[in-house]
Amino acid sequence: MNNKDIRELLAKVKNGNLEVDQAMGQLKDLPFSDLGYAKVDHHRSLRNGYPEVIYCEGKSNEEIKGIVTNMLERGNNILATRAEEEVYHALEELTDDIEYYERSKIIVIQQEEVAETESEILVVTGGTSDIPVAQEAVITADMLGNTVKRLYDVGVAGIHRLLGNQDKLKEANIIIVVAGMEGALASVVSGLVDKPVIAVPTSVGYGAHFDGVASLLSMLNSCASGLGVVNIDNGFGAGYLASTINRQIEQARNN
Amino acid sequence: MNNKDIRELLAKVKNGNLEVDQAMGQLKDLPFSDLGYAKVDHHRSLRNGYPEVIYCEGKSNEEIKGIVTNMLERGNNILATRAEEEVYHALEELTDDIEYYERSKIIVIQQEEVAETESEILVVTGGTSDIPVAQEAVITADMLGNTVKRLYDVGVAGIHRLLGNQDKLKEANIIIVVAGMEGALASVVSGLVDKPVIAVPTSVGYGAHFDGVASLLSMLNSCASGLGVVNIDNGFGAGYLASTINRQIEQARNN
Amino acid sequence: MNNKDIRELLAKVKNGNLEVDQAMGQLKDLPFSDLGYAKVDHHRSLRNGYPEVIYCEGKSNEEIKGIVTNMLERGNNILATRAEEEVYHALEELTDDIEYYERSKIIVIQQEEVAETESEILVVTGGTSDIPVAQEAVITADMLGNTVKRLYDVGVAGIHRLLGNQDKLKEANIIIVVAGMEGALASVVSGLVDKPVIAVPTSVGYGAHFDGVASLLSMLNSCASGLGVVNIDNGFGAGYLASTINRQIEQARNN
Amino acid sequence: MNNKDIRELLAKVKNGNLEVDQAMGQLKDLPFSDLGYAKVDHHRSLRNGYPEVIYCEGKSNEEIKGIVTNMLERGNNILATRAEEEVYHALEELTDDIEYYERSKIIVIQQEEVAETESEILVVTGGTSDIPVAQEAVITADMLGNTVKRLYDVGVAGIHRLLGNQDKLKEANIIIVVAGMEGALASVVSGLVDKPVIAVPTSVGYGAHFDGVASLLSMLNSCASGLGVVNIDNGFGAGYLASTINRQIEQARNN
Amino acid sequence: MNNKDIRELLAKVKNGNLEVDQAMGQLKDLPFSDLGYAKVDHHRSLRNGYPEVIYCEGKSNEEIKGIVTNMLERGNNILATRAEEEVYHALEELTDDIEYYERSKIIVIQQEEVAETESEILVVTGGTSDIPVAQEAVITADMLGNTVKRLYDVGVAGIHRLLGNQDKLKEANIIIVVAGMEGALASVVSGLVDKPVIAVPTSVGYGAHFDGVASLLSMLNSCASGLGVVNIDNGFGAGYLASTINRQIEQARNN
Amino acid sequence: MNNKDIRELLAKVKNGNLEVDQAMGQLKDLPFSDLGYAKVDHHRSLRNGYPEVIYCEGKSNEEIKGIVTNMLERGNNILATRAEEEVYHALEELTDDIEYYERSKIIVIQQEEVAETESEILVVTGGTSDIPVAQEAVITADMLGNTVKRLYDVGVAGIHRLLGNQDKLKEANIIIVVAGMEGALASVVSGLVDKPVIAVPTSVGYGAHFDGVASLLSMLNSCASGLGVVNIDNGFGAGYLASTINRQIEQARNN
Amino acid sequence: MNNKDIRELLAKVKNGNLEVDQAMGQLKDLPFSDLGYAKVDHHRSLRNGYPEVIYCEGKSNEEIKGIVTNMLERGNNILATRAEEEVYHALEELTDDIEYYERSKIIVIQQEEVAETESEILVVTGGTSDIPVAQEAVITADMLGNTVKRLYDVGVAGIHRLLGNQDKLKEANIIIVVAGMEGALASVVSGLVDKPVIAVPTSVGYGAHFDGVASLLSMLNSCASGLGVVNIDNGFGAGYLASTINRQIEQARNN
Amino acid sequence: MNNKDIRELLAKVKNGNLEVDQAMGQLKDLPFSDLGYAKVDHHRSLRNGYPEVIYCEGKSNEEIKGIVTNMLERGNNILATRAEEEVYHALEELTDDIEYYERSKIIVIQQEEVAETESEILVVTGGTSDIPVAQEAVITADMLGNTVKRLYDVGVAGIHRLLGNQDKLKEANIIIVVAGMEGALASVVSGLVDKPVIAVPTSVGYGAHFDGVASLLSMLNSCASGLGVVNIDNGFGAGYLASTINRQIEQARNN
Repeated sequence: MNNKDIRELLAKVKNGNLEVDQAMGQLKDLPFSDLGYAKVDHHRSLRNGYPEVIYCEGKSNEEIKGIVTNMLERGNNILATRAEEEVYHALEELTDDIEYYERSKIIVIQQEEVAETESEILVVTGGTSDIPVAQEAVITADMLGNTVKRLYDVGVAGIHRLLGNQDKLKEANIIIVVAGMEGALASVVSGLVDKPVIAVPTSVGYGAHFDGVASLLSMLNSCASGLGVVNIDNGFGAGYLASTINRQIEQARNN
Repeated sequence: MNNKDIRELLAKVKNGNLEVDQAMGQLKDLPFSDLGYAKVDHHRSLRNGYPEVIYCEGKSNEEIKGIVTNMLERGNNILATRAEEEVYHALEELTDDIEYYERSKIIVIQQEEVAETESEILVVTGGTSDIPVAQEAVITADMLGNTVKRLYDVGVAGIHRLLGNQDKLKEANIIIVVAGMEGALASVVSGLVDKPVIAVPTSVGYGAHFDGVASLLSMLNSCASGLGVVNIDNGFGAGYLASTINRQIEQARNN
Repeated sequence: MNNKDIRELLAKVKNGNLEVDQAMGQLKDLPFSDLGYAKVDHHRSLRNGYPEVIYCEGKSNEEIKGIVTNMLERGNNILATRAEEEVYHALEELTDDIEYYERSKIIVIQQEEVAETESEILVVTGGTSDIPVAQEAVITADMLGNTVKRLYDVGVAGIHRLLGNQDKLKEANIIIVVAGMEGALASVVSGLVDKPVIAVPTSVGYGAHFDGVASLLSMLNSCASGLGVVNIDNGFGAGYLASTINRQIEQARNN
Repeated sequence: MNNKDIRELLAKVKNGNLEVDQAMGQLKDLPFSDLGYAKVDHHRSLRNGYPEVIYCEGKSNEEIKGIVTNMLERGNNILATRAEEEVYHALEELTDDIEYYERSKIIVIQQEEVAETESEILVVTGGTSDIPVAQEAVITADMLGNTVKRLYDVGVAGIHRLLGNQDKLKEANIIIVVAGMEGALASVVSGLVDKPVIAVPTSVGYGAHFDGVASLLSMLNSCASGLGVVNIDNGFGAGYLASTINRQIEQARNN
Repeated sequence: MNNKDIRELLAKVKNGNLEVDQAMGQLKDLPFSDLGYAKVDHHRSLRNGYPEVIYCEGKSNEEIKGIVTNMLERGNNILATRAEEEVYHALEELTDDIEYYERSKIIVIQQEEVAETESEILVVTGGTSDIPVAQEAVITADMLGNTVKRLYDVGVAGIHRLLGNQDKLKEANIIIVVAGMEGALASVVSGLVDKPVIAVPTSVGYGAHFDGVASLLSMLNSCASGLGVVNIDNGFGAGYLASTINRQIEQARNN
Repeated sequence: MNNKDIRELLAKVKNGNLEVDQAMGQLKDLPFSDLGYAKVDHHRSLRNGYPEVIYCEGKSNEEIKGIVTNMLERGNNILATRAEEEVYHALEELTDDIEYYERSKIIVIQQEEVAETESEILVVTGGTSDIPVAQEAVITADMLGNTVKRLYDVGVAGIHRLLGNQDKLKEANIIIVVAGMEGALASVVSGLVDKPVIAVPTSVGYGAHFDGVASLLSMLNSCASGLGVVNIDNGFGAGYLASTINRQIEQARNN
Repeated sequence: MNNKDIRELLAKVKNGNLEVDQAMGQLKDLPFSDLGYAKVDHHRSLRNGYPEVIYCEGKSNEEIKGIVTNMLERGNNILATRAEEEVYHALEELTDDIEYYERSKIIVIQQEEVAETESEILVVTGGTSDIPVAQEAVITADMLGNTVKRLYDVGVAGIHRLLGNQDKLKEANIIIVVAGMEGALASVVSGLVDKPVIAVPTSVGYGAHFDGVASLLSMLNSCASGLGVVNIDNGFGAGYLASTINRQIEQARNN
Repeated sequence: MNNKDIRELLAKVKNGNLEVDQAMGQLKDLPFSDLGYAKVDHHRSLRNGYPEVIYCEGKSNEEIKGIVTNMLERGNNILATRAEEEVYHALEELTDDIEYYERSKIIVIQQEEVAETESEILVVTGGTSDIPVAQEAVITADMLGNTVKRLYDVGVAGIHRLLGNQDKLKEANIIIVVAGMEGALASVVSGLVDKPVIAVPTSVGYGAHFDGVASLLSMLNSCASGLGVVNIDNGFGAGYLASTINRQIEQARNN
């Protein structure tokens, strides 16, 4: 509710077109549903056609089912991240429009079509082992209405694999680099292009990799300017950030 | 040099329009100057009208002067980051078009005008102590040709300061949040808008802040989706990333 | 045994009202039972009507049963924290007045009624996944005789959920904020009120969350003044601290 | 501005007693002063008679002077923490009611009297080296209108020093324990009393003390229930938290 | 083989009482058995009547059986630490003189009697959960021929439990303190006595305990002088160190 | 494709001996196979007779089978590291020339003979528990065509075991030291010889060993000059590095 | 005051040989002097002939002078650790019996003779750079009445230097090993002898040494049994612990 | 002294060609000079023509002068690392054959010529700021008799700078990569060549670089096989390791 809305509401009260109690109600009736254990936030999806998102870790199956039931009633698309297989089976009881990506632990419930953007997001991985995280980014960006391309297994140990695919880097508007180990790929890609690069460190590695810390630090300290880094294994966050960027681009294109 | 360029070059060789040695030269003559201790990379600025950037820490004044002398000859704008005051004095001998921002330790040498974008980047800080880092982001984005606005000292300890400025958040296309301490501002801002938010943790804090680690972890673990995080105190990186995003937006607008 | 007690004891010895051996006994007979592997401390509950508390992790079921058997004889209420389900089954054999909260891993054995305070403790969570820890705080404070209210799932990613519940914050005398991820909720709540706020970081998160470290550091570095922080996932400690505060408030009220 | 205020405002608009523009103004005119680089928050002091607080680290002397000048106009007491001596000299130019505690790096500007509470806060230290941090807590609590007592240098290496002072622990309503090294004093004190204990780890130590981390972890992991911990060397935060507790106690006493 | 031995050997060679090859053999025949995957070191037990010790973690059952078979032939006592139950079952096939302490994961094979020292080692624990580690120390010291006493569950949260047992501290010659959580017990004990105190941090705790790091740092930073600290959960090392000290005491007594 | 190759290619184009499209093909046909989820890199093995290597962690069995199938067609030897037993069973279906080293989690598929070098690599371990990692180094170096010797269980706690085997150290050209615990063996070996020493820290240890960090730091800080350190438990990397060194030695010998 | 003392005191009260107030006084008059900012603990020196010790870091010169003045009156020897040179100059004003060891930052004020023990403590260092810490141990042990020997610069990079001095190791009763870098010397020495070894990690090193952490972890994880470790650079603690051990040995010898 | 030497010595004793005391002397006269505070080890230089090396940090100027004086008498070349300028001035008094490299803090005293190897060591840096560390490696390798080449400022942010210099990589036998920031250069170089690559992480960076930790972890986790890593900023160690490798190569060449 922005300044303009408030001014209009006040004007209606002044003109007698709105009772004080009604005005109170409008000011107070915030766009979330209260389930007791969860306040479902329909805010963003109402405004944006965005899917609603549930982070499943630490929630009981019953809680997740309650939240999803509430969401389904509104007809929105739903993305459930960090979902174990048993969550999937629990939600299967609620709807048939459901798909489970086991290695990415992500559930997609698609109730309505999403448009595709003209601009492209390219998701690049260092190795094959990084694909589950990359897939989380791909699905997220896709559900948010973006055109998404992939370029997998082009890590710097054999840099000709990347250099041989520079055309793909050039065609993209936003690039997500998903890499474990030393995560050097993010720096190299960022040095090759002049567009937004989002770096996703993965926990692929062992020993002094410390479950992704080595990749994370590598990306935060990139000698290439202007990488935006998300949490370790946070494909969802990268896909979401890429989408907010792409939305700005599309809006400019359509103006 | 892309596939099309190579094909054309080969065609010229075939047609006798280009000698083998000339072709070799074109394939090999990469756009950097070799100073021995530094390979000055004119690549980006040539292509983009971008300023050239020097990271000063760890370089001797002589080295920096050598590099800047080389850059000045090409007429580019120059940004020198992490520059102690003595670096500024050393460079003053080379040019008058130079300005030093002491608390941000940044030197600007502006030799040519830069255009302004239609889209806006908004730089927000949690406290007054975060301003030197914010200023680095502002100057960087400005030098890269962006329209930049500021909203300072709106940290979450008095959240009405932020909520009272939501219009500024709405007007911006890209938001950079600069915050030390617990860095919660990034999450709150990101929850209020639906646009790209770049988070810059600062080293403002003490004790268990660990010189910025607390802010950094806070931002990487934001419950708000899709923050892109840069290194601690890396105002430059945030300004640069915001600029690459803005460039995509402007290109879309102009198509 | 304070100075006054000692003086009285000495006076009785002097007056011949107490034998030296009896005096020795009183000086030595400390209020704990020695089970060999555990010294059960009845001290606090005797004095306070407090329940007795067992930290179960690392103790064998036999040891826990021995300790609880000893406690049951004294008629006190008992709180067993960090208790696996098998501990619950072992204790079920000892008493029927037993309840197990599976997700909070807490066992309650209530043998006597506890009074309710006039002042209120409000337990707030950032997300649904933080509820098991919040529940530990709720049960602990409840068992210690406090009036406890709840406000769940009001994290800062959708700050209108919190702002829409400010009345609940205002009614409380002490607030416990339970939050994982970046734990920013504690700072925002603390900035909105002017009362004791106890912050409980949770291990809800992944990657660079480091099992709660990110939330912990965030809370320790809050830009809002005067948060008291407890260990990661330590709902018990928060409930206990809130109760000691409430006890001081109630005592002042009753004077 | 709470629900009741909004209802009244809306009623005035309805009755024509308030113009829409005036209502907008009242809704928007939030109680802070905007200095550009700082938004001075008079909120709390207006409501509470609390002093206004400035965290000086990272702010320029000019900025601090600007903020204090603004505060002085309102007649509030002022507390400047983490202030180097040069800050003190800069502020001396503005007022004579100023005092500087060099080892605690705290500046006090007292423009109005503060009342004293009936309840007592006791500040305890492990060693003599912890006194500067303890002093920060003492001054903060004192400025916030509390009765404060001290018990210094009673660390656990000579536990008879603490045991010989148990009467002081008993007389206090809230205890702040300030300790470096292994910080064990907090646990021992907390085990001896049944009241709120706030633990302040200090950076007193060396080697594997890691500038206070050892004390911090020790206090967070106390085997004694219900310690509230603040950041390393954060005497201010402890004094502030103690004061919010004491305020609740006093309010109950006066009801 | 010390200087005197070498001189005698050389003298025998000179005198023709020893052939060069024999001398070579004596110089080379080091007291260990080579099993290929393990060099069993009989050195210490030969010299000292000490048991032989195997660290089981990371060794296959076959390897452990091979090593123990070799040891059994020499008639020594054997201590196997960090042994899973399946190791115990594997070794049961080799000998009947075997005992397994499940919670301490330690196996004792006693083939010969060990004497008892006059001096006493006292093993103290903070809580009941620390007993498995304490037991490792007790068994180790016992197997090495020491008189060992125990004082369990006297942590500082109820310090009267420790103060009520000061006589036991006074009777001991060497004290091992085993404590998790904040490990404060080591400091308090060390402050009460004037004898060697060996501190064993345990992994008993959670959250910011970091699997024993909090206890470890606490003990390394003790304000009480002269604690010797061993690795987290290293009851064996503490028992062994106590025994080397006791051996020096006994030797002095017997001179 | 080096400068000389490009010049020849250009000359052929000029002379009409090569069509533009053919030239394009040669410039673009990089030596890797694209499986979509993986770009198999035949580069090194083609050039060197080296085996192809797969890092199995994080890859699905189907992906691994796809990659190996592609490799088998080229007749190369294959090394699969970090392979669970189920990977082995999946690959058994593809070929009989396969061997699985369970404790080292390494799979060897040998399709062609490898030569042996004249120079020797010696793999030394501190304890028996380090052998699985050592074995990974041995197999890797062996598959890469090196002569490999072993010296196991010669840790510094019984230094005579090492000193009694100095001849083996002298005969080797390159030494790999594999050690957990405090990893001191690497320093001692490096002090005894004057040849390349590669240090492999292992995760053998507990408590403050932090899964290999203690050994890693120990080796990085060796007081003996010139150790090359690889990641924790990275026997493969050590074997590979030793092999690149040996290859240089052999090339010099054969010139 | 032990059980026997209390019984006697009670008997005197009973017999009228002691008034209640006197008895109170004796029970309360604990052996420390209260300076307000410091409670000087004469306990140990009274009982033991031990010097009194001041940890100077974080104390003002005035505080240190106050404490030392109080100590001097009792005629005890005094040891001031972590003392900057200006502390030395401040104390020079109080007494002439004062000596300052600049590199060890330790001040000795010797007012009375100390006896020498028959048993020997040997202090060994890895390098020359470790000597300042070793010297702190030597002086501490010396002041506490022990016979102390030295063996410096025998680090494991040239192990023959240590092996050539095994006789010194054999003659000692207790060995203190002071080492930085990878700290391997402690393990090697401990493996060579069968007596108490106290390990002192030093901050000598750089980079991944982390100011002593590498040495500390190395010593805590020693593969040689039974090292007792003290804090980084804590020569004082090592000297003190060695002395408590030696005191037990001497007592046994003299019985 | 190997087996053969001992056998010959024993034979001489047997034959009466060597007295027992002489034999003792030969067995005991180890090749180091004892200065009390330092045992100068002439071992390696005697055998190898290697320079003697002093690590200066933590040593007093007097100690360093004493050690160098002893070394100078033997006519060896000397390398002093981590030497502050005042050390240089102290040593200037001893000899004129001395040179100081200020930014690398290394002193070279060259008393005799060193030969050059046929094989080449190439030292590569990511940036200009890494040169001081690279220079330490260059000087060390040079003093040890190696042919050393340089390739500076070819970091991955502009990868064409590296790719344009592949010929230099091909000509080298051993490559040392010196890089700060994210240290990705080591992986990229290692992927381009098939020879020993030694990686030196530098402390060039800020914030989450943690003084070199980010570069170190990056290099330890390289996706390119077989990097040998040395400590942060340890140019000396890299030069030394490269030299031991080169020595093996040269020996093979000369056989």
